[in-house]
Formats: sequence, C-alpha cells, structure tokens
Amino acid sequence: MANNLLKGKKGIIFGALNSNSIAWKVAERAYEEGAEFVLSNAPIALRMGEINELAQATGSEIIPADATSIEDLTVLFDKTIEKFGKIDFILHSIGMSVNVRKGIHYTESNHEYYMKAMDVSAISFHKVMKVAMEKDAMNEWGSILALSYIAAQRVFPDYNDMADAKSLLESITRSFGYHFGERKKVRVNTISQSPTATTAGSGVKGFDGFISYAEEMSPLGNASALACADYCISMFSDLTKYVTMQNLFHDGGFSFTGVSRSVMDKFEKGYN
Amino acid sequence: MANNLLKGKKGIIFGALNSNSIAWKVAERAYEEGAEFVLSNAPIALRMGEINELAQATGSEIIPADATSIEDLTVLFDKTIEKFGKIDFILHSIGMSVNVRKGIHYTESNHEYYMKAMDVSAISFHKVMKVAMEKDAMNEWGSILALSYIAAQRVFPDYNDMADAKSLLESITRSFGYHFGERKKVRVNTISQSPTATTAGSGVKGFDGFISYAEEMSPLGNASALACADYCISMFSDLTKYVTMQNLFHDGGFSFTGVSRSVMDKFEKGYN
Amino acid sequence: MANNLLKGKKGIIFGALNSNSIAWKVAERAYEEGAEFVLSNAPIALRMGEINELAQATGSEIIPADATSIEDLTVLFDKTIEKFGKIDFILHSIGMSVNVRKGIHYTESNHEYYMKAMDVSAISFHKVMKVAMEKDAMNEWGSILALSYIAAQRVFPDYNDMADAKSLLESITRSFGYHFGERKKVRVNTISQSPTATTAGSGVKGFDGFISYAEEMSPLGNASALACADYCISMFSDLTKYVTMQNLFHDGGFSFTGVSRSVMDKFEKGYN
Amino acid sequence: MANNLLKGKKGIIFGALNSNSIAWKVAERAYEEGAEFVLSNAPIALRMGEINELAQATGSEIIPADATSIEDLTVLFDKTIEKFGKIDFILHSIGMSVNVRKGIHYTESNHEYYMKAMDVSAISFHKVMKVAMEKDAMNEWGSILALSYIAAQRVFPDYNDMADAKSLLESITRSFGYHFGERKKVRVNTISQSPTATTAGSGVKGFDGFISYAEEMSPLGNASALACADYCISMFSDLTKYVTMQNLFHDGGFSFTGVSRSVMDKFEKGYN
Repeated sequence: MANNLLKGKKGIIFGALNSNSIAWKVAERAYEEGAEFVLSNAPIALRMGEINELAQATGSEIIPADATSIEDLTVLFDKTIEKFGKIDFILHSIGMSVNVRKGIHYTESNHEYYMKAMDVSAISFHKVMKVAMEKDAMNEWGSILALSYIAAQRVFPDYNDMADAKSLLESITRSFGYHFGERKKVRVNTISQSPTATTAGSGVKGFDGFISYAEEMSPLGNASALACADYCISMFSDLTKYVTMQNLFHDGGFSFTGVSRSVMDKFEKGYN
Repeated sequence: MANNLLKGKKGIIFGALNSNSIAWKVAERAYEEGAEFVLSNAPIALRMGEINELAQATGSEIIPADATSIEDLTVLFDKTIEKFGKIDFILHSIGMSVNVRKGIHYTESNHEYYMKAMDVSAISFHKVMKVAMEKDAMNEWGSILALSYIAAQRVFPDYNDMADAKSLLESITRSFGYHFGERKKVRVNTISQSPTATTAGSGVKGFDGFISYAEEMSPLGNASALACADYCISMFSDLTKYVTMQNLFHDGGFSFTGVSRSVMDKFEKGYN
Repeated sequence: MANNLLKGKKGIIFGALNSNSIAWKVAERAYEEGAEFVLSNAPIALRMGEINELAQATGSEIIPADATSIEDLTVLFDKTIEKFGKIDFILHSIGMSVNVRKGIHYTESNHEYYMKAMDVSAISFHKVMKVAMEKDAMNEWGSILALSYIAAQRVFPDYNDMADAKSLLESITRSFGYHFGERKKVRVNTISQSPTATTAGSGVKGFDGFISYAEEMSPLGNASALACADYCISMFSDLTKYVTMQNLFHDGGFSFTGVSRSVMDKFEKGYN
Repeated sequence: MANNLLKGKKGIIFGALNSNSIAWKVAERAYEEGAEFVLSNAPIALRMGEINELAQATGSEIIPADATSIEDLTVLFDKTIEKFGKIDFILHSIGMSVNVRKGIHYTESNHEYYMKAMDVSAISFHKVMKVAMEKDAMNEWGSILALSYIAAQRVFPDYNDMADAKSLLESITRSFGYHFGERKKVRVNTISQSPTATTAGSGVKGFDGFISYAEEMSPLGNASALACADYCISMFSDLTKYVTMQNLFHDGGFSFTGVSRSVMDKFEKGYN
C-alpha cells in the first residue's frame, strides 16, 4: 500500500533500533508514502543497531542524539534544518527504565533510576519540542507523535515506573500541544499501542504472558508494529489536521473492554 | 458505627426490595445516622417485597410509585412534602432490562425492550428530578444519588443493554446536576459499585463467575452492599457538599486496575 | 488531495442533507478517494434535500430509509448488498431533538420527545448495526462511524437532551463495537467534532456565540466540515484498522483545553 | 460539626503552612473529629510558618522533614511510629515549581527546575509511601491522600509545569495504590480541588482572574479550603473504605461543565 500520503513532507524519527522497532516500521512506511527524514537515536543505541541498513533502504541520514541532552538536540535540529528547511513531522519512540531492567519492585524504586526513567521516557519529549520551537523548526500544520501505553491510565503491576513515565509523557503532550497549536498550528499527540514484541517491550517481566492476555482481551486482537506504523502515517498526513493534545488508543479495543468472553473462560478454568 | 451524620435530614429512598438490596442497607444506615425518609418502590415490587419490615425498623412510611410515571412521582413528592417539608436527599436504585431477563443477545436486542430498559433504569432518574425541581422539593445543599456500574465505561458482554442504560444514567446525572446545582445548590452524582449479589444483579448471565473475577481484580476486593451504604451516607452528609455531576467509583480499585497479578495467574493457568 | 485511499471500497452514507452537511462532505471526499456508496436519508429529509445533485456528482444511488425503522433498514441493506455485495464502511450522521427544536428546557423535557431524541439520534445506530450484522453485510476490517459531540462528556446547557443522546450513542458504539470486532473484525467508532454550522447544528439555541467560544478555546481553531470529512476518510481507510470502540475528538484541541488565554481575556473584559 | 468520625485514628499531615493552607484546615477538622496526628513540613517552611500555633491548638507534635529526602522521611516515620504505633491516615499537600515562581514559560522550562517540580510535587508522594510501606507504618484500611488539580487532565496555560507534576502525582497514586491495597488494604487517592487562595496557589500568574472564572464556571461555585477539609475527613473515615486509586474532583462541578451560561455571557460581552 502506498498512496503518496506524505509526499513532500520531511521529518525526524527517533528510536529505530532494529526491525522489530515501531519506529523502524514507521520509517519504512513513511518512505513508501513519499516522506524524507532524518533517523536519530542515542549514540549507544546506534552502536548496537542495524540502523545503517534502514538508512540505506530509505535514503536517510543518521544523526545521533541523546534525547535528554539539549546540546545534542540542538545539533540535531540545526543539521536537520540545514538539510531540509522546516520539517513536518516528528516521531518520539524512546523509553527506558533502570528499575524495570534491574527488576526492582515499584514500591522499592530507586529514585535516581526513577528520575532517569522520567527523563529518558517523558521529559525528553519536552526537550525535543522545546528545541523544535526555539529553532522554529516546524511547518504549520505539522504533526508530532510519541508512543504511549495504557498503563498511563490503569495499573499493570509489572509495567512498574514506566506507567508513571507514560502518564507524564501524555501530560507533556497536552501541555506542549496547547502552545504548539496556538502559535504554530502544530498538533501533538500520543498513540497508545498494544503490547508489542519489540526490544524495549521484552524488558518487562512476564511480557509474553501479558501479550497473550491482551490478545484475548482485544476484540480485534493486538495491533502489530506495522499496523501501528500505518496509524502513525495517518497522523502525519493531512487527513488529521485538527486532532491534537490527545492520547489515541491503537489496541484492537483493549482499552474499552472490561472483560472479554475469552478471558473470562480462561479465568474460570484457571480459577477452579 | 453511628455518628449522627444525617441528623435532621429527610429523604426518599427508591428501590429497597429485600435485605440484599443496596437501597435496603442505605435505609438502615441512614436511620442509624439520624435521618427520616420515605421508602418508595414500584407497586409490583412492593407486593413481593419484605419492605414492611424495613419500614417498621426505620419508622418510615412506604409510598408506592412507578418511577417511570410522572403521575405517580407527583403523588409521591406531594405526600413527602406534606410530611417533611423540603427534603435533603434522594437515592435512586432502580434498574431493569427485559432483554437481560429473556437472555436476548445485545446484537439482537428487541428495541421495545431496549427502550423500556432506558426508561426504567435511566430516564426515571430524569423524571424524579424533574418532579423534584418542579415541586421545589429539595433543600439547598441537598444530595441526589443513583447507582451505576463500570459497564458504562467499558464493555462487559453479559451486561447487555444495561451498559447503555448506565451510560445514559450518568449523562442525565451530569446534565441535570448542572441545572440543579446552579439553581438550588443541590448536588447530583452516581456511585459505580462493585458487582453485588442483589436480586437485580443476579439476573445477569454468568454473574457468579464475574463476581469472582472482580474480586480477584480489585486490590481491596469487591465492596459489599453495606460498604456501599456507608459511602452513600458520606455523599448525603455535609462532608461532600461540593462533589457534583460525577460518577464515583466504589469498587476496591477495580476501575483503575488493568490486570492484577492474581487474575494473570488464573488466566495463564487456564490458557495453558 | 486524492490518494486512492478508499479504492474498491463500498459503503452507506446516512444523513447528507445539503452541502453544509458533514455527511455531504464525506460523500464528496469518499468519491474522490475511489469509494462507491449508497446515500440514505429519511424520506422527509430527502424531499427537502438537494441530495440528487450529490448523487449525480458521485455516481451514487439514493435509497430512502427512516433509520429508526428496522423494516426500512432491512430494505436498504438488502438493496445495497444486491448492488455491491458486502460493504466496507458506514457513516451514521443522524440526530434530532424535538425538545431542542421547541425550546423546551432540559429540566422540563417532554419525555415522549426525549425518547424520540434517543431513538433518532442514538438507538438508530444500534438498529443500523443490528441489521448489518444480521445480514452479514460487512467485510472483515470494515469501519463504522457515527458523529458525536463533547456534550457527551461535559455539560453545555443549551445542548439539552442531545447531550444524553450522544452519551447513549457512544455507549452503543462501545457495546456493539465489542461484538462486531470479535465476530467480524469490524471497527466501530464515533468522531466528536467541533461545533459546525450545519442545518442540524443551527437548531441549537445560542449556537453562533458558541461557535465563537469554541473557536477561541481551541488552539487550532474549530475543525471545519471538510476537515471532519478528511478525518472520516482516514477512519475508513486501511491505516486505522485497530482503532475501535472509541470516541475520537476532532476539535482542534478544545476537549483538552481547560481555558485558553484568549477566552480568559474575553472573560475578564466581560467580567469587569 | 463534629461527629467523632476519626476517633482513635492517628496520622501524619504534610504541608500546613499557615491558616490559609488546606492542610491547616484538615488538621483543625481532624482534631475536631477526634484524630491525633503529627504535623510535618520542610524545615524551611517551618521557619516562616505559624505552625506552632496549630500544633498547640490541636495538641500535635511538629516533626520537620524534607519530603524529597528518604533520610528525613525515615526519621519522621520512626518517630511517628514510636509515638503512635501504626497510623491510619496521611495527607500530602506539597507542591512547588521554580519555573512558575520565576515566570519561565512552559515551552522554555529550565529542565533542572522542571525535575525539581516533579520531585517536590509528585515523586515525594512516592517516597512517603515507600518509607511508610517499608516501615509497615499503616494500619489495615488506612487512607492516604494527596491534593491535585484539574490541570492534570486539561490545559490551563498559566499552570505551567505543575500540570505535569499533578499528572505524575495521580499516576503514582494509582500505581502505589494498587500495591498498598493488595498488601495492606490501604487506599490511596487524590482530591482535585477548586482553585484555592492559598500561599501556594497565589504563586500562579493570573490566579485571581482564574478564581473568578472557576467560580462562574462551577454550578455550585468554588469549593473553599474548609469544604476541602471536610471532604478529606470523609476520605479518612470508615465511610469510604473501598474508594481507591482515584482522582476525586471536589470543585463544585467545574470539571464536568463544558461552559456555564454565566461564563458564556461574560465571554460574549468581552468578545463584542
């Protein structure tokens, strides 16, 4: 499927690590739809990543940046503007929790790690937009997206402090979205995606069981990374210009299902 | 526990059918806290009910009324005002679906029954408030409550068209609450209660399994009918004067839990 | 803009009255994107409408149906299936309140009119889907949409009983969306649109003032009928397959703005 | 009003600065209702505060603690447990933003100050609960409260990064509430209060105008600090045992009002 939906549009895509990454799929789909973009990732992630392959396939330049560093982001935006002029879209697909990685229980969080999770997974989005606004980097009716998760609304115990990070991310989306909208007609949203078997997702304890649970709970089943990329394309296109300051569920109906027949059946079987 | 929280307050309690009813517990607790009230129920419910017992125990008068009939409600409010003057609280605990009773699937709803479910379970609340406002029956800072259920927000397939009725009920609560607040300083809210083994609840297919599911999903367990009555007392008391136009979850944490460890364990056991 | 997004897709569009109608714009845009569809409206609306013009411009057939009548809907779906085979999308853009038209205050609603508002504006959506499911009319991964308004979440006093109708509509969307998703992979959503100067909208008292208010409150300004049509196209396309059971705000940020600088300025000027 | 609602209950109240503080009113009301408690505040706040007066009036001990310091909190809980044994309630009424104080625009936030706002206003709540759980300080069916604001849900531009802090606070409430409920039957909630003319509130730019706006927008008017204290009492009492993981609006209906007649009138006057 390719409909020239992003023809002539330029952007920055953060967080393509390998071919399982949602950001990787977004890059592939954006390329198919006619967009040009810069790929960015933390220097450390670039070292392990297969991102050169993606850069070649999509004719993109890679510009490393630690998204928690205003300095790095400044360089990134300067180079991007030099290359493209103003841009039309940004994808922020960045998240990391040391408490999760080290298996530290939420109630015992190390607060230095906790702060780090907020900085990397949420405040970095504020930093990206701060630099973008300062540099006047966005075209009018541009679109900025980050990826969230339903743990921002309801508790999934294993998701740990990433739940708080996603809530903070969604609040930043609203707060910055107000100002970016009013001044520059730019929209800012998050997509709350089904649990997805990416490298990031697989760090969460009990993740496989949880993917099955979400699959059975969602009337349409879990959304894949590719389906998520399609949805991102629609949000970058001119079809969705007035959608802003929102968290958009892309999860096959999980978020509005109290319980499915299928989950009740398994529960009752396991209960007896 | 008795703290004179409702001393001097008068009210109307709709829907006490038998000692399992939430409305029955509310009546007992309101009496303990010093309130006087009228008990009302549909004539047909009164015939089967043990409500005379409750009336004696709480020194209350029973005034029958079909809550879908403006005529019946007019008589009820006239008699109540004659007895007490203006009143301070109303509990609406009324719900019924013929589609549920007859086991008709939601996608095949009979629309005459569907309309009846809306009328009895939701629009009756509008009718009660319309008559109360017309008769100027409420004291300033009075409190009006109805009982709802989380199916108004998320889908529980067996709950059928009662989900739609509860959504409508919550909307009526907001809409009428705005006007009752502005004109008369009266607050209007719903309480979204844990699944409770009442006569009404037990009409829902698969209800027992669902009570276990909710119990395991709620960090504090399911709230009992008595606990719900305690919460209603707090909402009728002067401690909550500025709470209005809301749906208040009283469910041990069910509504904000995505999945509990305990439900995941049973799911995984049943899944394999 | 035309990207062949709906190439090969077939559908039914309810509620195109005249060129101000959102449904009219959706029809024009769907045609541009390669879709074929049937136009349907109440017989009485057809008589006043300029819909023949739209039918000619888009090569569409008009099939009259009162959407509250299962009989009419049955004929409509039978004819549509005969023409197209299974279909891919449905737009429900139908709403009407006699209490609003006659200027009856919400607290004094005539309950016969109230029921009629629920039936026409909300329950008709259930009826459409009931017949669609019974006839097995939808292709897998089809998309069904209705139009809602933020009065379903928050009170706008002049919106009257249409607020309750929209809440009910959104509940039906979730409830039916669960079953349509599980059985047929069909998604069901509502779009909550900015106030729009359509024939329907202009029936609401104080509507012009309110359009200005929403314009000033929304960081991106009010979304036009054409922008809404674009968003509908994205929801009918294959880019949004896993979005279901939701109410999607399309309102320039109105719904997540507590107050804008611009509204505060006017308020303070008017307050002093 | 005194109903012995907290008879025999012990607690900790954070954040009573002077007689305008909500925490101050909570302390007075808790004392009236029979509770005993420790007052805690940051050492620097204690120096300016008139808190000794409150301590004398309520027979309470003051134990200073910087709520961002695990060390300070450990001392506080150790001393409190030594004094009372296990406790029944905690009030967290702590918030501060340097970006707000210095009038730095949200889009230009200094990120060191931003982090500090998160730490003081939100993460401190996690720290309090972490220490409380580690020390096993809470009795079963205890109640923990923090104060929030509707800027956590919708944008009020002048509220700046405190909006993000309140969103984070509410997420911590859910996340920790899950674990505290499951392990100790302790409930955790936030109260989202009307704008209140406290020392903290008055730091926000344009606060007076905003108080008038909220007053006109709320069907019951703004809730006072004393009314908020009453609501806190209900949340500490045994009447609300199954309410947990929630954000409870206490705002006279502001949160569910889209626009009031009175605000529309002022808007239209100021618009023309």
